[in-house]
Amino acid sequence: MNIVLLEPQAAAPETWTICSRRQVQHLHQHLNIKTGDTLKVGIRNGERYLTEIVALNDNTVQVRPLKQEQLPDKLPVTLIVAMPRPKVLRRLIMDSVTLGVEKIILLHSYRVDKSYWQTPFLQQIESYVTLGLEQAGDTIAPAVEIHKRFKPFVEDILPGLISAQQPAYVAHPYSEQAMPSSIVHPCTVIIGPEGGFIPYEIELLTQNGCQAVHLGQRIIRTETVIPYVLGRLFSGI
Amino acid sequence: MNIVLLEPQAAAPETWTICSRRQVQHLHQHLNIKTGDTLKVGIRNGERYLTEIVALNDNTVQVRPLKQEQLPDKLPVTLIVAMPRPKVLRRLIMDSVTLGVEKIILLHSYRVDKSYWQTPFLQQIESYVTLGLEQAGDTIAPAVEIHKRFKPFVEDILPGLISAQQPAYVAHPYSEQAMPSSIVHPCTVIIGPEGGFIPYEIELLTQNGCQAVHLGQRIIRTETVIPYVLGRLFSGI
Repeated sequence: MNIVLLEPQAAAPETWTICSRRQVQHLHQHLNIKTGDTLKVGIRNGERYLTEIVALNDNTVQVRPLKQEQLPDKLPVTLIVAMPRPKVLRRLIMDSVTLGVEKIILLHSYRVDKSYWQTPFLQQIESYVTLGLEQAGDTIAPAVEIHKRFKPFVEDILPGLISAQQPAYVAHPYSEQAMPSSIVHPCTVIIGPEGGFIPYEIELLTQNGCQAVHLGQRIIRTETVIPYVLGRLFSGI
Repeated sequence: MNIVLLEPQAAAPETWTICSRRQVQHLHQHLNIKTGDTLKVGIRNGERYLTEIVALNDNTVQVRPLKQEQLPDKLPVTLIVAMPRPKVLRRLIMDSVTLGVEKIILLHSYRVDKSYWQTPFLQQIESYVTLGLEQAGDTIAPAVEIHKRFKPFVEDILPGLISAQQPAYVAHPYSEQAMPSSIVHPCTVIIGPEGGFIPYEIELLTQNGCQAVHLGQRIIRTETVIPYVLGRLFSGI
């Protein structure tokens, strides 16, 4: 937690109150806070401030904003990822948000076990987004969309995300072209499930405007490939 | 598991026997194997083959090598990382191996909790390496070294890893220079603990030949920063 993220209603005109149990516990246990300490606090989808702790007890921490701070830039990327195993979902969302992805789309695919869509973790996405923002020092939550039908998404929605200025790259091991690197334009990145997209899916994606690109000779897990690809794509930033 | 990794002694001249319970269970449960199927099998620190399953039961799988396959290239990088929390260690080793790191060094640092060195997971490193190799389709285990004293390592051992042709980069948020990208030379990358290296440590590292470089405005967790940095550094490959 590198900033404390507050809901807008918690930010009264003069002093703000941190009352989330998770946040207050973290501040006491890991940062050992006391009155007069400074603390980075962000308002969800608002600004970020350096604040001063003016009062605290076991359940709440009150802070007073000192000065506004700069928010980190987002990466100009939409990440479309086949719905992962539930235990991977938290980390995948949190890491994508931390790294600055602008929009995340969870998509069904042939090799996605249908039971994955029943996980209660899907109700926790907003809290995973919060953790990712707090890690990064960011306040602007990316949009997270869920599309449980592959074909209608690829045929009807995906083409609207793609243009000459904003290409879409689907990671596919048997492609001739490599994933680009050091790009300066926005793009969409599509990552398949464990075992990869099936040939029909790759065909439908490429027919609808995606470029299939390989990632070298190694097969990398979904949760690891996301930071690896983002590091590669935006290495010029 | 994208290949099955066998110890050299398991590879008799004609047929090889897979008898690790983990591997045999995985093959039955996830790949639903049967006689006549092909299977990718590697010999630890040896070659990788396409094989054919010639016999199987609940406890063993026998295969016959059909043809030798190419091993994936390593990344020419030594990764030095402050000893992480035990629950992160497995993933960190596995991911680093999967991505092709040539050598991994676990290092003590001021903000590493001393209890981390007591974790029984440190006895499991070889098995984490195996998992990483099986994920990547690689057979060559990287060296993994443990150095529990920061100063002697940095003063006496680290300078021997650094040269004009093989620089060392330490990730440090307040540096003026950015982590390089698209490099074609070997290098050493040094990643600090949660909370970062302390100023004394950064000073000792730079005095002993390391370049302090930043990674942008976002603060990224250790386990996420490794694939991100490797994707960035070797984006030209």
